[in-house]
Amino acid sequence: MLKEAIFHRSESSWAYPIAKEQIRVTLRTGKYDAVRCSVIARERYDIQLQEFVTPMERVGSDQFFTYWSADIGFPTRRIMYYFAIEGSDGGTIWYGEQGVSSNPGEAGWFQFPMITSGDTLIVPEWARGAVAYQIFPDRFANGDPANDPAHVSPWEVNPPKELVAYPYTSFGGDLKGITAKLPYLADLGVELIYLTPIFESPSAHKYDIRDYYKIDPQFGTMEDLRCLVDGAHARGIRIILDGVFNHCGFEFGPFQDVVANGPSSPYWDWFHVHGYPIVTEPVPNYEAWAFTPLVPRLNTTNPEVVKYFTAVGLYWLREAGIDGWRLDTANECDPNFWRFFRRAIKKEFPDAILMGEVWHDANRWLGGDQFDCVMNYVFRDSVLDFFAKRTIDAVEFDGRVTRMLVMYRRQAQEVNLNLLGSHDTGRFLGFCQDRKELLKLAVAFQMTFLGMPLIYYGDEIGMTSDGGLEDGRAPMIWDEAAQDKELRRYVAQLVKLRRQSPVLRIGEFRTLLAGSCTNTYAFARYLDDRIMVVVLNNSGEDVDVAIDLTAVSRHCQGIEVSFLELLTGAHRTTVQSQLQVRVEPYGVQIWSNHS
Amino acid sequence: MLKEAIFHRSESSWAYPIAKEQIRVTLRTGKYDAVRCSVIARERYDIQLQEFVTPMERVGSDQFFTYWSADIGFPTRRIMYYFAIEGSDGGTIWYGEQGVSSNPGEAGWFQFPMITSGDTLIVPEWARGAVAYQIFPDRFANGDPANDPAHVSPWEVNPPKELVAYPYTSFGGDLKGITAKLPYLADLGVELIYLTPIFESPSAHKYDIRDYYKIDPQFGTMEDLRCLVDGAHARGIRIILDGVFNHCGFEFGPFQDVVANGPSSPYWDWFHVHGYPIVTEPVPNYEAWAFTPLVPRLNTTNPEVVKYFTAVGLYWLREAGIDGWRLDTANECDPNFWRFFRRAIKKEFPDAILMGEVWHDANRWLGGDQFDCVMNYVFRDSVLDFFAKRTIDAVEFDGRVTRMLVMYRRQAQEVNLNLLGSHDTGRFLGFCQDRKELLKLAVAFQMTFLGMPLIYYGDEIGMTSDGGLEDGRAPMIWDEAAQDKELRRYVAQLVKLRRQSPVLRIGEFRTLLAGSCTNTYAFARYLDDRIMVVVLNNSGEDVDVAIDLTAVSRHCQGIEVSFLELLTGAHRTTVQSQLQVRVEPYGVQIWSNHS
Repeated sequence: MLKEAIFHRSESSWAYPIAKEQIRVTLRTGKYDAVRCSVIARERYDIQLQEFVTPMERVGSDQFFTYWSADIGFPTRRIMYYFAIEGSDGGTIWYGEQGVSSNPGEAGWFQFPMITSGDTLIVPEWARGAVAYQIFPDRFANGDPANDPAHVSPWEVNPPKELVAYPYTSFGGDLKGITAKLPYLADLGVELIYLTPIFESPSAHKYDIRDYYKIDPQFGTMEDLRCLVDGAHARGIRIILDGVFNHCGFEFGPFQDVVANGPSSPYWDWFHVHGYPIVTEPVPNYEAWAFTPLVPRLNTTNPEVVKYFTAVGLYWLREAGIDGWRLDTANECDPNFWRFFRRAIKKEFPDAILMGEVWHDANRWLGGDQFDCVMNYVFRDSVLDFFAKRTIDAVEFDGRVTRMLVMYRRQAQEVNLNLLGSHDTGRFLGFCQDRKELLKLAVAFQMTFLGMPLIYYGDEIGMTSDGGLEDGRAPMIWDEAAQDKELRRYVAQLVKLRRQSPVLRIGEFRTLLAGSCTNTYAFARYLDDRIMVVVLNNSGEDVDVAIDLTAVSRHCQGIEVSFLELLTGAHRTTVQSQLQVRVEPYGVQIWSNHS
Repeated sequence: MLKEAIFHRSESSWAYPIAKEQIRVTLRTGKYDAVRCSVIARERYDIQLQEFVTPMERVGSDQFFTYWSADIGFPTRRIMYYFAIEGSDGGTIWYGEQGVSSNPGEAGWFQFPMITSGDTLIVPEWARGAVAYQIFPDRFANGDPANDPAHVSPWEVNPPKELVAYPYTSFGGDLKGITAKLPYLADLGVELIYLTPIFESPSAHKYDIRDYYKIDPQFGTMEDLRCLVDGAHARGIRIILDGVFNHCGFEFGPFQDVVANGPSSPYWDWFHVHGYPIVTEPVPNYEAWAFTPLVPRLNTTNPEVVKYFTAVGLYWLREAGIDGWRLDTANECDPNFWRFFRRAIKKEFPDAILMGEVWHDANRWLGGDQFDCVMNYVFRDSVLDFFAKRTIDAVEFDGRVTRMLVMYRRQAQEVNLNLLGSHDTGRFLGFCQDRKELLKLAVAFQMTFLGMPLIYYGDEIGMTSDGGLEDGRAPMIWDEAAQDKELRRYVAQLVKLRRQSPVLRIGEFRTLLAGSCTNTYAFARYLDDRIMVVVLNNSGEDVDVAIDLTAVSRHCQGIEVSFLELLTGAHRTTVQSQLQVRVEPYGVQIWSNHS
C-alpha cells in the first residue's frame, strides 16, 4: 500500500462539524490501494474506552487518489478517532495523528475535542440548491426611460463590442426594468437574483462606488428597490446585492477627504496611502485594486472601516429587505472584517446569505466564521474545460469533480454559486464556439449538480460573446424573434426538474461512469430511497452504456428497479443492477426511480 | 518521482504570513524524491507577469516525506505561486492548485490573495524563546502559615503518595511563598512563571473555581498577588495565570443559581443542562468536563458567558498586572469565544501572551485569531519516547521533530511551551526510571530547541514520581540536603546559555545527524553568521561522529571554522566542513562558532 498517498488532518475540509453532534471526516488514499476504509472512534473521556467502527463511503477518485468519508459523533460532541485502511493486497494498516502503522495501537488518535457552533458552517436553509440568476442592471431592462442619462446608448441586439466593454456606456437598464421582468424570471424558475452593484458610481458597472448609501439615480430610487424586492418576494424570489468593500471609487467621500487633506484627514487610515499629495500616475501612491487608480483599496483592518461597512451591510438588509450579500474581491479583505460582518449580519438576519467572490480554492473562508459560500469559479473552470473548450475528457473531469467534492465543507457545497459565466468572463456559449449542444450539456450538469446553479442573464436565450473579460455585458435581448426560445424552454425545463426534486437540490452525489472512449459521464444523486441517474454524452456519437448502480443500490432497493427518464418519459428497468441506455450525440438523460 | 507524496495547500500551516509582506510556504515531497525545490511566484495583478524564483530550504524528513520551505512576498502583499520539484531522477515536475504536471503552465497557481494582519499570528516579542517555570501554588512554598487551612499537611520531602494525589490535601503553599522564592527563580534564570489556578475553589488544584474574582484565601490576597507580580517584574520575570473558562466549580454562583432555580435561572443558558432538578449521579444531567460532576461545562457559545470571562481575563491583567493567560481545556471552548477574548485582551494588552492547553495537533487554534501558542505536549511525547521511555531511536525522533517543525506557524513554534511534564503528568525523572543522565539529555534538548522551555517546579532539583497523572504534585523540596544541587547547577547553566544566546532563542533549526546505530542526535541552530551545533549522545557508549555542516555552511563561513564547546571550553576546527567529535555516554556538547 502506498503509505505516502494517505492524508488526513483534523482540521479544514478534512474534519468539520456536519451536525450538532457529528463531524464529517475525509480520508485520502492512493487511487487503487484501498478496498475498504473505516473510522474507529470513541468519546474522548469515555471511561469504558468503547470504540465504534463506522465504514467510510467512497467519495470518488482523481488522477492519483481515492477519497473516503464518514460522519461520526457522540452526544457529548467530544471525538477521537483513527482510520483502518484495508488494502487491495489483503493487509490492513492504521492511520492516526502519529502516522501510519501496522499496529492499530501505534497510529495515535486524531482529536476533534469539541463540536461547537462557532466551528460550524451554518448556511440558510432556503439557499440549499436554489436556482440563481445574475443581472447586470444597466444591461437587463430599461423600465424607466426618465432616469436614463443624457447619452444613453440604444438597446440593440448586437451593439458594437467596444460600446459594450467600455465602462462608461449606459444602456439605460434600471431597477424598474428588473421589476417589470419578474414574471419572466418567475416563469424561468429563478429563486434568487444576484444584482451587480447598484450604488452611486461613475461607471456603468458601478464597482467604483461614490456613495454606499445611495442607489445610483440611473438605476432608480430606494422606493424602486423596495418595489423590486417586494415584487420578487411575492413570487418566492430572493434578492442579493453586490457589496464592494475591498475598494471604493476614487470619488468616495472619505477618499476625497484624504485627497484634499492628506495625513490630517480623519480618513487617512481608511486607506493604504504611501505619499502625499495623492498621485494616480504612473502608478498610484496608494493601494488600489489591481493597480487601478480609480478604485482605491480600503483598509479593512481599521475598526472604523469595519464598522462603516458592516453598517452599510445592515442598512440595506433593514431598509430594502434584501436577502444577503455577494461580497466583491472578498479574498483581499481582512478576515477579521468578515468575522465581524458575519456576526453582525447573522445575528439580526440569520437567513441572509453571505457569498464571497473567490476564484480559487476558497476553503479558508468557508470555515463557518466568514462566508456561507463563494462564486464557484473552480466549478466553472472544470465545466468550461470539459464541455466548452474540450481540453479534458470525462475521466479528468470526474477527477476535478471529485476534488471539488472534498475541497469544501458540505454545507458550502450545497450553496456554492455554480456559474458558467459572469460579468467578469466571456459568455459560456462563446467559449463553446456557439455550439448550443455544448452549452445545453453544461446547463444539464449545472442543474443536476450540488449547489446553487447560476444563470447569467441572457445565457438562457442564447446570448453569446467573444471571450473577452467584459464582452458578456451586452443588453439583454427582449426581441423574441432574436431569442433562442428552444434553449429557453430547455433551461426552464431543467430548472423546473431541479426545483421539484429534493434529490437534485440536496441529495448526495456519486460518480457512476466516466468513459474515456465514449467521453460520457454518468452520476447518481440520491436521498433516502430516491435516486436519479444523470447521463451526459459529451461526444458526437451515439453511445450505449451500461451504468452499474451497485455502489448506490441501497438507495434504489433491489437489482431490478424501474426507472423513468424525466425529459422524454421513457421507461427502463435495471438488469443485475445495471441501467443500460443509449444516448444520442451530446444527449442528456435523467433517470429517476420515482415517477 | 512519487507524485502521490507531494502536498501543499494555500492555507493552514502550509501557507501563512510570516511578515507584513511575506508568506512562508511549505511543500511536502516523497522522502528521497526531490533534490531541489523552488517556488515560482508573481504579484497577482502584475501586468508584466514577472515571475520570481525562490529556492526552498530543506526543513527535514520523517519516515516517508521530506519537507521544504521558503518565504516569498511582494510589497503589494498579493501572491500567486507554484512549485518546481527537481527529482533525483533528473526530471522536473511542477505543482500548483491543479495538481502535478510535467508542464509548468498546466499546474495552475496557488493563490495567497492578500496578506492581512487579521490572518497573521502576532506573538509577544518578549516571549520568543523565553525560559518558563510552572508552579502549583499549594505545593511550591509556604510564605504565610497564617493563611493555612485547619488541616494542613506537613511539608515533608516524601509525603505519602495518596496525600499528594488527593485533591483536597493542602500543604499550605501560597503567593507569599512564591514571592519569597523569587531570588531562587531569578538565580535559576527563569523569565516567565506559569501558576496553576489561584482563584477561590474547594480543591487544592483549584480547577473547580467558585469565584473568578477572588484569590483563594489559602493562597493570599490581591495585595499578595500584586507583590508577587511586582517582585517578579523587578527581576525581569513575567507571570501568567491559569484561566479555567471551559468549566467552573460546582459551587460557582451562576451554577448554584441554576441548581436552585432551574430553567427560570438567568444563568440557565450559561451551561448545558439537560434536566431539572440537577442530579450528579450516576452521571450528571448537565455537561461536565470529562463527566466529572464537580466541574460543570460552561456554554462558551453564549455571548453573556463570553463577556463574563473576557471581563475576568481583563480584570486580572488590569488589577494585578499579570502578563497573560494559560487557558485550560482550551480545545473544548467555542472558537468564537477565543476570538472575542483575544481581540479584547490584545487591544488593551498587546504584549500579553495567550496560551492554550491543547495536547494534540493544535494548528487550528494557532491561525492568529485565537492563541499565541499551546502547552506543547506533542513536544513532550517525542522527548519522553526518545530520552525517557526509549521506545524510539534517534531517526524516529528526528522524524517527529521534523513533523513538529511543519505542524505550526513559525511564530507559534517560537513561543510554544515545551514541557517535559506538568501537574497533569508524572515527573519526567520518574519516566526515566530516575536515571538522571536521561533527564539531563532531555533538558539539554529542551533548552536548545525552538520555543519556550518549561521547567516544572522541582524537576530542576531531582524531584521524581511514579507515572500517575497527579503524582507529580509533591511539595517542593527546599531542604538543600535533599536537593540534587548538581542537577540544579546543570539546568541553570543551560538556562544561562540559552538566555545569552539569540541563536538558541530564535535561531533556525536544522537536523545534522540522526544516527540509528549510535542513537546520537545532532542539530544546528543558526542566525545570520552565528551557528551552534548541539550533539546529544542518547546511548551508553562513547560515540565518535563526524557532523557534516555543508547544509548550514553559509552560516559558518568557510569549511575550516573554529568552534568552541560551551560546557567544557574545548576547541575544535572543522575539516572539510565536518565537525569531528567524541561524545561520552549520555553526553551533551554545544559547539558555537562565536566564542
